[in-house]
Amino acid sequence: MSYNKAPSITAETINPRVKIIRYAPCGEIVKHAARLEQEIEENPASIPFQEIIYCNLGNPQVLGQPPLTFFREVLSLCDNPALMDRDEARALFSPCSIRRARRILNSIPSKDTGGYTDCRGIKCLRQVVADGITARDGFPSTADDIFLTDGATSAINLMMQILIRSHEDGILSPLPEYPLYSASIILHGGTMVPYNLTEDNGWGLEIFEVKRCLEEARSAGLTVRAMVVINPGNPTGQVYQENIYAENKKFHSFKKVARSLAYDENDLTLVSLHSVSMSYGESGRRGGYMEVSGVAANVKDQIYKVASLTLCPNIAGQILVSLAMDPPKLGDESFESFDKEKEQIRSSFCKRAKTLEKAFSGLEGVTCNKLEGALYLFPRLHLPSAAIRAADFEGVSPDIFYAHRLLDATGIAVVPGSGFHQASGTIHIRCTILPDERKIEAMVARLRAFHKAFMNEFRGSQQVMNDLRR
Amino acid sequence: MSYNKAPSITAETINPRVKIIRYAPCGEIVKHAARLEQEIEENPASIPFQEIIYCNLGNPQVLGQPPLTFFREVLSLCDNPALMDRDEARALFSPCSIRRARRILNSIPSKDTGGYTDCRGIKCLRQVVADGITARDGFPSTADDIFLTDGATSAINLMMQILIRSHEDGILSPLPEYPLYSASIILHGGTMVPYNLTEDNGWGLEIFEVKRCLEEARSAGLTVRAMVVINPGNPTGQVYQENIYAENKKFHSFKKVARSLAYDENDLTLVSLHSVSMSYGESGRRGGYMEVSGVAANVKDQIYKVASLTLCPNIAGQILVSLAMDPPKLGDESFESFDKEKEQIRSSFCKRAKTLEKAFSGLEGVTCNKLEGALYLFPRLHLPSAAIRAADFEGVSPDIFYAHRLLDATGIAVVPGSGFHQASGTIHIRCTILPDERKIEAMVARLRAFHKAFMNEFRGSQQVMNDLRR
Repeated sequence: MSYNKAPSITAETINPRVKIIRYAPCGEIVKHAARLEQEIEENPASIPFQEIIYCNLGNPQVLGQPPLTFFREVLSLCDNPALMDRDEARALFSPCSIRRARRILNSIPSKDTGGYTDCRGIKCLRQVVADGITARDGFPSTADDIFLTDGATSAINLMMQILIRSHEDGILSPLPEYPLYSASIILHGGTMVPYNLTEDNGWGLEIFEVKRCLEEARSAGLTVRAMVVINPGNPTGQVYQENIYAENKKFHSFKKVARSLAYDENDLTLVSLHSVSMSYGESGRRGGYMEVSGVAANVKDQIYKVASLTLCPNIAGQILVSLAMDPPKLGDESFESFDKEKEQIRSSFCKRAKTLEKAFSGLEGVTCNKLEGALYLFPRLHLPSAAIRAADFEGVSPDIFYAHRLLDATGIAVVPGSGFHQASGTIHIRCTILPDERKIEAMVARLRAFHKAFMNEFRGSQQVMNDLRR
Repeated sequence: MSYNKAPSITAETINPRVKIIRYAPCGEIVKHAARLEQEIEENPASIPFQEIIYCNLGNPQVLGQPPLTFFREVLSLCDNPALMDRDEARALFSPCSIRRARRILNSIPSKDTGGYTDCRGIKCLRQVVADGITARDGFPSTADDIFLTDGATSAINLMMQILIRSHEDGILSPLPEYPLYSASIILHGGTMVPYNLTEDNGWGLEIFEVKRCLEEARSAGLTVRAMVVINPGNPTGQVYQENIYAENKKFHSFKKVARSLAYDENDLTLVSLHSVSMSYGESGRRGGYMEVSGVAANVKDQIYKVASLTLCPNIAGQILVSLAMDPPKLGDESFESFDKEKEQIRSSFCKRAKTLEKAFSGLEGVTCNKLEGALYLFPRLHLPSAAIRAADFEGVSPDIFYAHRLLDATGIAVVPGSGFHQASGTIHIRCTILPDERKIEAMVARLRAFHKAFMNEFRGSQQVMNDLRR
């Protein structure tokens, strides 16, 4: 046997499915922003701004949103249960947090938060989540239907692993889309069957469009295994469970709607995912859950087996998701402060959403749907044809061209719409509403000045070219 | 389009790769143990013991091992940074924990632990891990080579995703094995190329055996992409980084050995995984890291992209793994207590390992290799042929038959060796060394009584059958 010095892992020899996936929210724009950030540090005079404003990722706490005190007190006590036996703790923690931490610890056989748990999560926390869903929907949920997960992401990957057998299995999924879905479908060897959301109808889902896509996929020989609905729309911002700004909209779960229409477990298989990332900003904690309903026991056994391969979801995330589904109630010592903190965050989101929505809508050639919930705006740009040709000349799509120019001129990092598979022939950017209220006015001013200059530059060159043609 | 009432997810239509994988440590024995546990609660008189002794999973804290105080103090402060500004905190936390928590929080741009981090983990924590590896090996490691992960498991899955293109890609992996490896290889569509560890040589790795397997795989048309080495051996218990009991053995990383032999980054691609699960018992926290060396920048970009799909590893796990790689040093206020707690755990492991090793070796027809490290014994059973026939009659392998009988008679839950792909024709069980010292004597007594009765029962029936034959 000869000794082969060539490296075993090269870009040429890795899994080709890995190579073709794209994940724009952490893609080129972000890498470029990080380079600019380093440049600001090393040679500030060379850059026309002093800081990067990250509007690329729904990451509220990194942009200054404070965590909810009740959540962190309970976590802190569960990490270090010895605190609860000390008199000093009474001055440092709300009685409500102490009671909750004790209840959580007592429900764990070892009374500690270090060991592996059931691969679906600690049973009493699953019960808390099930009770929260029951209260929300008015239809029963049980702990046996709940799998706690490391954020919603791991649940998406788990379900794709269960569902997809080959590239002949299709998954109906919306466009524009949160790109994890297409990436996960591709990585698991399946085929994405996209259905288009209707921008002119507030990014609504039209049933004839879904039917058209389903029929087309079936004609092409695909077996469509599931349909993905993203609520809140991401990047498109339709209504959302926790952060709803639109006054005449309310969150309704699919299960609630199905049960209200008398469809039961035998009629419909539903897998519902939720997490503490967007709604509470505890993104890095990776706390989420999956509720499976209408799934046979022998399939649930298979889901259990795949979940057991990763042993268990992280415990801090498990605790957080249980707190989110069972927050302090009227009469609890923490109720008022919890509610006040939550309302402050919600109303600030609302204010920032409106400011940015207005700013985008006021730009020449830009239309922007109202933000009903979630953390994103997805404005549509109508750029001069000279700008589109300039992008083409640089070998990039116009949204990427615009986003790079914006970043270089202002330090504002947004994600180009092509990263979310916007409808072909359209140009969008996704911008979170998360920058601090104090920064948002300055950001809007920079955005306006940039956009005006951009439009003038290319309108100008358009004029020059038209003149030349004459 | 007709409305189809048949459920979309059935055991018949899910991914067949999911159906064939097995994960024994959380498999049938554990489910049966849980049923017995419920029976004890509801009808204690019907069961000949009062509690289940879980020896199926390396899960120290669930079996009573206390967490390390320093770890939990730092976690607790990072969760609830407001504590550090309070005078009372000085009575509750060691100055060392407060300094460390401050240092960690200051290294996060938002000074909080809620947001998404870089998908590889927080940079300063990756630096801490790299520095820890450098100090351990005496050869440099850099933060750019470190990916923090949700336990070692997610790193295994990530690398299989990167490496495996089709079933023609093989991964060399040891037998007996920790079954996550074969499961991950199968789920990612590859082929496991097993090499046998040598039981008669303390479960050692023999180079001729690895060569033989490699050549056979190549002749069969497989491209062997990587070789897995499990250190500590699991279920086989060879030397281990943190819990080493064998007095003349020491942990040497592959990188250290390779660099000592003057092989550099251009010669060898190494991916090294570690976690806080086994070494510190913080299993449920899901904290781990992966060091990649000898990997080209454009491959690292692809690893980064796949890691970014899950956004980031959980923050509590990130913090814990950094603490494990940079524990309190001589002169730090927490040094003595940390060291004492760690030594108590190590010496107790050592004591329990020796007690169980002696107990198994003393059983009729049982041989048991010395435990050099880790948390498992993997004794080999030589059972009467009548027992093997009885197992066959029940349609199970002899190890499963024995493990079920043991559980039903004593409440001791071990994992049958077939769950780890023991060599064909051999019979093993995997038993953790984790039950509490106070319980271990009673456990050994029950094990001895059971084994004696089991052997007598089947030796008896052997005699009866021999008598009949005459």
